[in-house]
Amino acid sequence: MRQLDSLLRPRSVAVIGASSESAKTAGRPIAYLQKHGYAGRIYPVNPRSETIAGLPCYADVASLPEAPDVGLVLLGAARAAQAVRDLAGRGAGAAIVLASGFQETGAAGAERQRALREAAGDMPLLGPNTIGLVNLTDGITLSASGALEMDDLQRGSIAVVSQSGGVLGAMLSRAASRGIGFSKLVSTGNEADLDVADLVENLLDDPATAVIALYIEGLRKPAAFRAAAVRAARLGKPLVVFKVGRSESGARSAVSHTGALAGADRMYDALFAQCGVIRAQTFADLLDIPAALATGRRLAGRRIAILTSTGGAGTLVADSCGLAGLDTPAPDGATAARLDALESGGDAVLSRNPIDLTLAGLKPELLRGALGALLASPGYDGAVVIAGSSSLQHPGLVSGAVRDCLRDSDKPVLVYVSPHAPHIVADLNRQGIPAFAAPESCASAFAAMLARRAAPAATPARGAPADDAARREAGAQARALPAGPLHEADSKALFARFGVPTVREAIAATPAEAGPAAAALGERVVIKALSRQLAHKSDIGGVAVGVPAAEVEARGQAMLQAVRAATDAPIEGLLVQEMVRGGVEMILGLHHDPQLGPAILLGMGGVAAELFDDTALRLLPLTRADAEAMVRELKTRALLEGYRGAPRADIPALVDAILAFAHMAEELGDKLAEAEINPLFVLPEGQGVKAADGVAILR
Amino acid sequence: MRQLDSLLRPRSVAVIGASSESAKTAGRPIAYLQKHGYAGRIYPVNPRSETIAGLPCYADVASLPEAPDVGLVLLGAARAAQAVRDLAGRGAGAAIVLASGFQETGAAGAERQRALREAAGDMPLLGPNTIGLVNLTDGITLSASGALEMDDLQRGSIAVVSQSGGVLGAMLSRAASRGIGFSKLVSTGNEADLDVADLVENLLDDPATAVIALYIEGLRKPAAFRAAAVRAARLGKPLVVFKVGRSESGARSAVSHTGALAGADRMYDALFAQCGVIRAQTFADLLDIPAALATGRRLAGRRIAILTSTGGAGTLVADSCGLAGLDTPAPDGATAARLDALESGGDAVLSRNPIDLTLAGLKPELLRGALGALLASPGYDGAVVIAGSSSLQHPGLVSGAVRDCLRDSDKPVLVYVSPHAPHIVADLNRQGIPAFAAPESCASAFAAMLARRAAPAATPARGAPADDAARREAGAQARALPAGPLHEADSKALFARFGVPTVREAIAATPAEAGPAAAALGERVVIKALSRQLAHKSDIGGVAVGVPAAEVEARGQAMLQAVRAATDAPIEGLLVQEMVRGGVEMILGLHHDPQLGPAILLGMGGVAAELFDDTALRLLPLTRADAEAMVRELKTRALLEGYRGAPRADIPALVDAILAFAHMAEELGDKLAEAEINPLFVLPEGQGVKAADGVAILR
Repeated sequence: MRQLDSLLRPRSVAVIGASSESAKTAGRPIAYLQKHGYAGRIYPVNPRSETIAGLPCYADVASLPEAPDVGLVLLGAARAAQAVRDLAGRGAGAAIVLASGFQETGAAGAERQRALREAAGDMPLLGPNTIGLVNLTDGITLSASGALEMDDLQRGSIAVVSQSGGVLGAMLSRAASRGIGFSKLVSTGNEADLDVADLVENLLDDPATAVIALYIEGLRKPAAFRAAAVRAARLGKPLVVFKVGRSESGARSAVSHTGALAGADRMYDALFAQCGVIRAQTFADLLDIPAALATGRRLAGRRIAILTSTGGAGTLVADSCGLAGLDTPAPDGATAARLDALESGGDAVLSRNPIDLTLAGLKPELLRGALGALLASPGYDGAVVIAGSSSLQHPGLVSGAVRDCLRDSDKPVLVYVSPHAPHIVADLNRQGIPAFAAPESCASAFAAMLARRAAPAATPARGAPADDAARREAGAQARALPAGPLHEADSKALFARFGVPTVREAIAATPAEAGPAAAALGERVVIKALSRQLAHKSDIGGVAVGVPAAEVEARGQAMLQAVRAATDAPIEGLLVQEMVRGGVEMILGLHHDPQLGPAILLGMGGVAAELFDDTALRLLPLTRADAEAMVRELKTRALLEGYRGAPRADIPALVDAILAFAHMAEELGDKLAEAEINPLFVLPEGQGVKAADGVAILR
Repeated sequence: MRQLDSLLRPRSVAVIGASSESAKTAGRPIAYLQKHGYAGRIYPVNPRSETIAGLPCYADVASLPEAPDVGLVLLGAARAAQAVRDLAGRGAGAAIVLASGFQETGAAGAERQRALREAAGDMPLLGPNTIGLVNLTDGITLSASGALEMDDLQRGSIAVVSQSGGVLGAMLSRAASRGIGFSKLVSTGNEADLDVADLVENLLDDPATAVIALYIEGLRKPAAFRAAAVRAARLGKPLVVFKVGRSESGARSAVSHTGALAGADRMYDALFAQCGVIRAQTFADLLDIPAALATGRRLAGRRIAILTSTGGAGTLVADSCGLAGLDTPAPDGATAARLDALESGGDAVLSRNPIDLTLAGLKPELLRGALGALLASPGYDGAVVIAGSSSLQHPGLVSGAVRDCLRDSDKPVLVYVSPHAPHIVADLNRQGIPAFAAPESCASAFAAMLARRAAPAATPARGAPADDAARREAGAQARALPAGPLHEADSKALFARFGVPTVREAIAATPAEAGPAAAALGERVVIKALSRQLAHKSDIGGVAVGVPAAEVEARGQAMLQAVRAATDAPIEGLLVQEMVRGGVEMILGLHHDPQLGPAILLGMGGVAAELFDDTALRLLPLTRADAEAMVRELKTRALLEGYRGAPRADIPALVDAILAFAHMAEELGDKLAEAEINPLFVLPEGQGVKAADGVAILR
């Protein structure tokens, strides 16, 4: 981890290329530093000015009175590298380059970016093509963003890291209007050096930051990100990510193999699932969910009370909650009695949920009493209070009641504001009460709070030390093999050496040898043409299932003739296998994502994996919890759990096989180009699994 | 259709129970009528006042100088019925009852509501428990809603009908802040008399209304709604519906038969799909989609250009569009050249989409030129323009460019406003340019505009007249049958008489008769125990598949023994059937929704229908287009289209079978309690379909 203290909390800032005209982009950063009360030392650098904004101006970096903690470079793309080199030479703590015109513009720009990176050397570099950095905790603004024209930048415990400066600015202005405050905002831009993972690592150690919101288009250092996310889970600081590029995953129209099923965006889902990162589904969620999590309150279960004085809005919220997997049960008897005792009178309906106080909800003591009763009830894990149109006349009503009740309860309370009333939303948020103008936001905030309940992601482990020796031995054997595809029997032998159970089988050089080989494998067997160059042998008659042992030689003969007629691929003999009866057929494969690296794919066999994309993905390395989650994630897991009276399948053995396969992929690394088992039979409970077909390609 | 002119455009309004204190709820309606410039005659009715708000006050309805077009009843639940009876007796055109305390409160309230309805007689009654009605086109406010305190209620071409008054009020205040205007707003409340369908019917004839937005919790008159929706489609006035109660549909955890698969909310999806109603997925969509549709512009295809000066926001919108099924292709060569010729200079990237003008986008003529080029391009069907943070300094920039370009193009243009800038959103909307603060809104608005492309729903037809005679004949035969379940053979014979092809089969009273019967059906046959009381015969050995003709007698004998040992149900003999080989197995069934009535369910056989809920539903009556859409809607339709080299299935024959089955259900009406074919084999193209098993239960 790279310490970025001097970048995030600089005691001195040199502004290279500062302008004395505060209206100009190059004039803004110093104006903003002063406006927002920066307490450190500011050094304008510009050979054409004597003073800027009342500060002595320096002709160049060399003449600065000290090595600045941060050099904020406002020069254009052509001159930025020299400034960065000067700063690095002077011993500056970090540099920020705002200019665009680098990698995002094409080949020449990419070359400029390489030069810029080189100029920075070991000095941390933020950007280029960044809007900069704002530390609201300490009143430090290192940016030219027009969003800093706002007078009143609210402090809070949410940090934002965004690969897009424009999105960062939009979040800042949207949050301000909503009364949501931030601790730090960082735009990483082109990430020539520092990337999202570096910033997250540092923000995890920031005591002012409780939640980190991330806007990303892709991860340059997925392993570092994963390590940071695992640490975040351990520290209890949630990461909430909005990632664009989701629509690629929508384009899975014509899938034909497991590789195609694993779209890149799904890999991010896998990564986020593995390390406990909450994925925001809408752009609004990227503010709404952190705002709810920033309260530090946890939702211990799914049961939500909805307290309203206006029926329609309560129904809206209840429906959204239900869609998000939350429950809205009616009050239990004791709670209903407590509500009744409040004597709300009129048409109030207190035995259902939403609990509708109707107009009686305008009485503060009644609202407080009802909310108190709901939060005290063991039947609810959290509550939503609806601020209806009456709140326009009584703006403090809801906030007062909620604030009072939160003192006596550690359950989370959200507010849904039904009419257009941005001042009420902002007022509530400023008081630390998450308030939303969309019913769906309440639901996604609670769903995210519920997701946090899950245990933090464990550090991936590679199994018992005893297994490690066997694995290293198997790895050494495999690494000695030449590059290229293995035939089916060798592929499965490889998998077996790493601990994946396979069908019993024998290689027969000729049909005459196949007969005797079959005898040991049962009354009926499977015979296959064996070739390392034949990917789809069943398409050309290279597979026969249920062949009686007595017919093996003749059928084998016929098979070889048919296959040789259909292909020029060299046939290496016949493979005779035991027949597997019963069990659930699955696919277990290795998938390489160009950006995120190797992953394991588990899918149901047959049409499920293909037509419904019913597969689960996890990046290497895998924990046992990951493997178990993969099985749970399959929509067809019912087939494993004893579907329609069938025996329950051996899920623990499946989990073992997933881990064995994953450990193989880890051990072999780049040596293993491709690997897939299809089908993997998962037999009834206690009978294990058997890999019946598969292929491995070595490098 | 009931004419509601006097309700929607009253020339005179009597306000029963009006108060002279304008701050009180009962004082508001007259104050609002005056405030918003009502041009008709207002008659306050209150025995305790001489004048109210400067108007002469009447002691009772009898003493009014004329029968009012509308009587607005402000009295409480206990006294409302008498006022309504008086109004009806006086010959009023319609009554509105605002009071709550009716059906929504329980049994006593329901009784009060029945009395209220009775009191109205033939006079149209809106409510009770309604917030009333606002006709903005003509400046008529018949409501006590605090939302009418707003000075500036903007007129527009969107009508809103809501079953919730609170939601209506929320929409009114939200729309006002967004610069979105309405023609009429009606809250139907408890719908003792007038319901959503009545209002829609009338609003379709309102020249000031171009789009109708509906908030519903359920439909009391689904057939009337459907008729209105079909007429709406024909008139080109889109209906956009937000329906709550969706979360029931999420609870499909333990499905075991087709009935359970068809959750009530899915029936609404079916209804909306059948009659061209656009379903809003989020509450925000209920304003956003109508605002886009109100422009009257149509999206002719999926190709969207995104024009931006800030990269991040463009990416956000592109990603949302992709998720919604839209395309964002790069500009074609000619368009790219036209963009290049604008000489935007700098770092502008014009060959990709989003088309990023960077800071050059601040030049009005450049923005206009670029948007003009994109709209003129045959490669785009519509465009989104991003208003970035620079628009805060240049608020008219985007609206000016869009307005100019819309003159020369009939393609739709939406604006996404990236920073928090409600004034810019409102300004654009007021100029008729749909503007949104959420990237997802742009996508759902365009997706809705695309859905409108589809041909309007046709009137359901029942096939050729010649078929009708056969159908009536088959119906007469069936109606003569006694109530109760039919056994398998009789069930399929019933289906066959309505035109559903079935397998060849014969009933054998004894195993001895079964042998000869089998001979005519092929070398191998299926035998089944025949009983009208045995729902799951395969579970107790009552089905044998692939029985050689020679073994039929012996196997039949054994089957009868096994079945009789397992059940007391009377066995009526053996059913001997031809074996069906190949083909795709499907389920075709009748489903009754308690609210929306009978529907047809089509599902893929096997695990697909159950584990993935891969079924399609349509309400009776069905058009051929509906039946075709059902097949298209299945995620597993690939299995019908020649999956993995299998022959393409006979989809036209499947569509015919769906229609025949639907016509049977229509013809028999209540006589048919249950009906299901499972499996229906869909054979290769040209070979038709065959119902292999099924059951019907008559009433």
